[in-house]
Amino acid sequence: MARRTDTRKKMIKTAAALLQRQGYAATGWRQVVAESDTPWGSQSHHFPGGKEELAIEAVAKSGADYERLVHSAFESGDPAGAVKTWTELASQVLEATDWSDGCPIATVVLEQAHESAAIGDACATVFATWGTAIASGLVGVGVEDDRAETLATVVLASIEGALILARAERDRRPLIVIGDELATRLTAEVAAVPPRSG
Amino acid sequence: MARRTDTRKKMIKTAAALLQRQGYAATGWRQVVAESDTPWGSQSHHFPGGKEELAIEAVAKSGADYERLVHSAFESGDPAGAVKTWTELASQVLEATDWSDGCPIATVVLEQAHESAAIGDACATVFATWGTAIASGLVGVGVEDDRAETLATVVLASIEGALILARAERDRRPLIVIGDELATRLTAEVAAVPPRSG
Repeated sequence: MARRTDTRKKMIKTAAALLQRQGYAATGWRQVVAESDTPWGSQSHHFPGGKEELAIEAVAKSGADYERLVHSAFESGDPAGAVKTWTELASQVLEATDWSDGCPIATVVLEQAHESAAIGDACATVFATWGTAIASGLVGVGVEDDRAETLATVVLASIEGALILARAERDRRPLIVIGDELATRLTAEVAAVPPRSG
Repeated sequence: MARRTDTRKKMIKTAAALLQRQGYAATGWRQVVAESDTPWGSQSHHFPGGKEELAIEAVAKSGADYERLVHSAFESGDPAGAVKTWTELASQVLEATDWSDGCPIATVVLEQAHESAAIGDACATVFATWGTAIASGLVGVGVEDDRAETLATVVLASIEGALILARAERDRRPLIVIGDELATRLTAEVAAVPPRSG
């Protein structure tokens, strides 16, 4: 039993890395099995729903890993610092991977969200958890709930877009610009929070 | 000669639509030839550089078509109205195509920019033309050159990211939120422009 679970986990971890790097269409079972060092032929046992099931699990895993980073950055009470850290780290990872490892799920969304409602749902759920982590950090420093949700969408959309531009340009520039702009914006939004009564 | 040119153009047009809808990896010659109603076997004549060459031409075509729209929206002297129009139209197109037709080149960037420097360059060139169209609209209403370039990156990144979120959610919400926020932002930036002397 332990062995089986281990095989499944290894395949999910490898698939998560491949989906981030090359997307859904380019990722086949042969590569997943080879790079996860798991036995060929066990795929249908571990993933009766096929590649779609594997992708859903991989998206959920990447999403949860990334959510922990986002949550930990934004719970510090310094949202402007959090976006700067995020865009700085993301640009370092991109450059270190020769501009391949951006958002772990964006490529899958663009390739598959309209083809597979189940994959689309899994990706939407992940984005929602990241949005919640950002928004709760903002609420923690006094921003109102609705405004925090709007700003979370602004942060997430801008960084996702900057990752696309940075990959095309093979340059950190878009991420640095967006990090600076978001930091200025969040600083102003937090400064505008009325002091608490009582 | 006219016939040949026509075949090449048809293939590029079809490829542009397929790359927007399903990305690079999922788009094969068989589908391009079938949907463009061109003769099988003529691919290597028209595109000696193979699928990479076809993709580069398709990206350039989509990019030029979209640039005309962006340019015409931003030359109106109302940048806030331009972003609202852009996000509104983009959300209409997404919904009408069952959440498939977002940015014509984003999927190609995420799948291929790190694999093919030539495709990455073609996409970066397209983003640069869109950025220039946005920035020149802002300069036209008095925003300084450097600030206009920064804001063009903000507009482009936010809308690209909102398109990803909207496709995952199958909902216009992210595009509407980003359209409203960008409009407010650009209105404030333009209002802060010092009156011209002389």
